[in-house]
Formats: sequence, C-alpha cells, structure tokens
Amino acid sequence: MSTVGFIGLGNMGGPMAANLVKAGFTVKGYDVVDQAQRKAGDAGVEIVTSPAEAADGADFLVTMLPKGQHVRDVLLGEQSPLSKLASGAIMIDCSSIDVPTSRDLNARGIELGIQVLDAPVSGGVSGATAGTLTFMVGGEESTVQKAQPVLDAMGSRVVVTGGPGAGQVAKACNQMVFGSSLAALAEAFTIAQRLGLEPQKLFDVLRTSSGDCWALHNFTPLPGLVENSAADNDYAPKFAAALLAKDLGLALTAANSAGVHLAVGKTALAMFDDMAKESGHLDASAVIKSIPTS
Amino acid sequence: MSTVGFIGLGNMGGPMAANLVKAGFTVKGYDVVDQAQRKAGDAGVEIVTSPAEAADGADFLVTMLPKGQHVRDVLLGEQSPLSKLASGAIMIDCSSIDVPTSRDLNARGIELGIQVLDAPVSGGVSGATAGTLTFMVGGEESTVQKAQPVLDAMGSRVVVTGGPGAGQVAKACNQMVFGSSLAALAEAFTIAQRLGLEPQKLFDVLRTSSGDCWALHNFTPLPGLVENSAADNDYAPKFAAALLAKDLGLALTAANSAGVHLAVGKTALAMFDDMAKESGHLDASAVIKSIPTS
Repeated sequence: MSTVGFIGLGNMGGPMAANLVKAGFTVKGYDVVDQAQRKAGDAGVEIVTSPAEAADGADFLVTMLPKGQHVRDVLLGEQSPLSKLASGAIMIDCSSIDVPTSRDLNARGIELGIQVLDAPVSGGVSGATAGTLTFMVGGEESTVQKAQPVLDAMGSRVVVTGGPGAGQVAKACNQMVFGSSLAALAEAFTIAQRLGLEPQKLFDVLRTSSGDCWALHNFTPLPGLVENSAADNDYAPKFAAALLAKDLGLALTAANSAGVHLAVGKTALAMFDDMAKESGHLDASAVIKSIPTS
Repeated sequence: MSTVGFIGLGNMGGPMAANLVKAGFTVKGYDVVDQAQRKAGDAGVEIVTSPAEAADGADFLVTMLPKGQHVRDVLLGEQSPLSKLASGAIMIDCSSIDVPTSRDLNARGIELGIQVLDAPVSGGVSGATAGTLTFMVGGEESTVQKAQPVLDAMGSRVVVTGGPGAGQVAKACNQMVFGSSLAALAEAFTIAQRLGLEPQKLFDVLRTSSGDCWALHNFTPLPGLVENSAADNDYAPKFAAALLAKDLGLALTAANSAGVHLAVGKTALAMFDDMAKESGHLDASAVIKSIPTS
C-alpha cells in the first residue's frame, strides 16, 4: 500500500488518520499538539516531527487544519512540504477554508507538479470516527480517481463538485443553508412556545409541511422531540456553534469574493457569531437560547 | 348530508367549495367577485347574495378570505353571519390570518354559541383542487371531530395543533422556516453560479447533506434540476412570492405579539417583500432573481 502523510491530527484528523491505518496505509502524521500526536500514535500513526517529514516521499498528503491561515502557514510558505512529496503525488486538503486560499494551494501544487484536491467534509467527529464522512471534492476527475482509495478509507461518499475550490464553495453554500434553516427553526420554536403552541405540535406540522428540513430532524432545538438530540443532552455539541459560525463566515467570504450580497445568510452568521461569543462550545441547536425576547 | 355556508370562492375557496359539493354537502356560497361566483355555481355551489345568506341555517360555515381585515369586516361586524347559523353549528376559518384576529373570532363564536376552528391550509391551489390540503387546526378536539367530514372533503390531512389560534401560529411558523430556507437556497445557488460551481453539483451536495430541505426539492430556484419546477416554466407561480411575503408578515406579527425579536425570519420577509413589489406574481423561487450582486 501507499504512504500517506497526514498533517493535523485533531478531533477530526485524528480518527481520519486512524482509519487510513486500519485500511492498510502507512501513515506518517504530524500535529503541533502533543496529545493529538500521542493519541494518533496509539492508533498506529507513525509520528514525525515536522510537516516536511510527514510529506517526505509520501504518495499522498492529507491535511485537516482549522483555518485558511494554517493552510497558508503550513503549505504555502517558502519551505512547503509539497516539494517533499514523491513524484506524481496527490495532496488532499480536507480543511474547510476560504476559497481564495484553496485556489492558491492548487496553484502552488501546479508549480510543484503536485495534483491538489480540495476535499472538505461533512459528518463531524462521529463520521470521522466511523469512516462515514462525505467529501465534497474540487479538482480534476482523474486525480479524484487516483485518490479514491484514500478517500474511501476515511469516508463513505465522494461528491465531485468541480474544479479547484469547488469543494469549498459547495461546503460553504451547504452550511449556509443549514445554518439559516436552523436559525429559522430556533425562531419558530421560540414563537410557538410563547404563544402556547406545543413544540411537539409544531414539530409534527414542520416535518410534514414546507418547513421540513434536515436541521429539524438532526439539530432539533428543543428537548423531547427527537431521540438523542443534543437538546436532550444539555446541548452537548454534536456540531459546535463556534464551528458553524466559522463555516458561515466562510460562506460570507465566498459570497463577497463572488460579489453576492447576502441577507439571510449574513443574518444567520450574525446570530451564530453572537451566540459563539459565550456559548460557542454548545451544540449549534442551542442558538434557540439566544433568541432575544421581551 | 349537512349544509355548508362558504364565504370566499377565490383560487383556493372555489375548488374547496366544489369538493364539498362532490362529497355530497349542500353548499351555499358567496364571493364579492362575480366571476368567482359563476365558476363556483358551475361546480354546483348554490350562489347567494350575502355572507348572512350563506350562513343562514347552515350546520357549518367555512371561510377562505385573503386577510385578517376581511375576516374582521365580514365576521366580526355588528351583523355577523355567525348569528345566522343553525344551533350547534361549527365555523371553520381556513383563511391564513394574524393570531389576534383569529382569537377574536373564536371569542365572538363563544358569545354566540358557535364553535370556531382556525384551520389554515397548506397545499396551494393544486392541493385545493385535488382535495389534498393539509389543515392546521386550532380549537377543541371535540369540535374538530364533528368537523372532520367537512375537512376530509377538502383535504387529506388534519393536524390538530392546539387551542384557538394554534393553527395560525403553526402555519406562520412553518412558512417562516420555509421562506428562510428558500431565501438561503437562492443565495447559495447565486454564489455557486458566480464561483463556477455547477447548479447540479450544488443540488447534489445539498440534497444529501445538512442543507437538505423541502424547499430544495419543491421550490428549486434554478431550472433544469427538478422535473416540472416553477423555474423550468419561467417561474409561473406554484406559490406566488406575494403570498409568501404575506405569510412571512403574519409570522412577524405573531413574533411581535409574543415578544420574540426575529432576525432570520425578518430578513427573509424583507427579501420577499422587496421582490413582491415588482414580481410578486412570480413563483416564490424567483427570489433568486432579486439577490443583489455587484
């Protein structure tokens, strides 16, 4: 099997790297956080001491970093680890980052003869652990085909969305629709509660009417409506509000770069941004606790 | 079979009254518009010359009026047709109106010994014609049971949402979630188009990810993605933007009466209100044409 360099072994990257090990890849991993390195080491990842060492001679380089700035710092500096990869290697950036950085990364790859895919994921930590992530992939079809075994080891679904950056655009757009739906649900359930409409009744109407949406079933903002909802568990995060705020920020950046003036998407961003200041660690569905009332 | 008085024989009320006739009810109908009266007459409705005459001796009174003000004018004036109904009669207001008016109507019913249900619908003109409307019903369970044959003749589903006004609250909340989702979809597809992500690719990501929603499949804002979408037919209305703007206004009224400060719902209202000024006759999905770009 091939060798995979892996940079960023956090809550998402750690289990993803572990799944590559399980699938038989040799994985050389790096993270700035000791604990993340140790945990990945326990899962069979060969821990190295720099991004360049992770990339050195590898057939694939997978990155899972928090923000565009990290991608710039780690991959677009003068000493880019991209130049250490084996000839014909493929770089797969699974980070959710801004479109311009993603496109710059692609351009750097072309300079260095490395094929780059942007492949942000959906599915969260549970999907990363179970190996059931969905990858939204921007890049050349032929590159995606070559990367398929690596993606298959970490996820259950690959959607090829288009050329470089298209994966990031798709994810940002999706998150914006999700966040806007969730914000509207939070407002709707707040109105219902205060006007004496039982949450269960509103739930029953929404799920069978034009207000039905994925967020209703998976991020139900009130307890007692859906089994194992975050709301049933004091809003312990399935997907933290701070992460959704970050994704909505990426959608705004994408919109700005496209000359699109957002209204609903921007309002949803403001709601989750506000909430994230104090409660960003809670599940995104806890946004219902920050709906202002008088 | 019983006699039903029917006030408001327009695009929705006309086919609803016709379905009551088909189900064997004697229907006495009134509308201010001659053409609506003639069309209902052709469908077997006995046309009368005033709301009072429609109600006179009837076992049920069904109303389908455009706005709360019409309900006030027709039903809450001094000469309310409610007083003409048979003893023990039931009034079913299918209009989508503001919660305070709906609750006032209920109170007037109690004064006059008439049981009142608020029963706004979803399903649009096609649902009204096919007899497949969903009723969101506020009122006493026992009254709903007695009204069931009338509701069954016009629709395929009855959701009892709670006490007086609860049907209106449920519908307003549902429409707010629908409108917010649709507005976010319009923004997402606009970003995608301008950043070179094919609409089909975004559609594929959304329908299998956290951005999935009823609006995506039924009010897809771009052509070529879903069979028989309004977008495929130059945005000929399945549900006109002006009507959605009206419903979002009702959600804002409900929120205000509940002391809830809307953000996303209010922004969606502003988007559809703006659009409705010039293109309110188009399908709500045409909101994508009014997303500002530079």
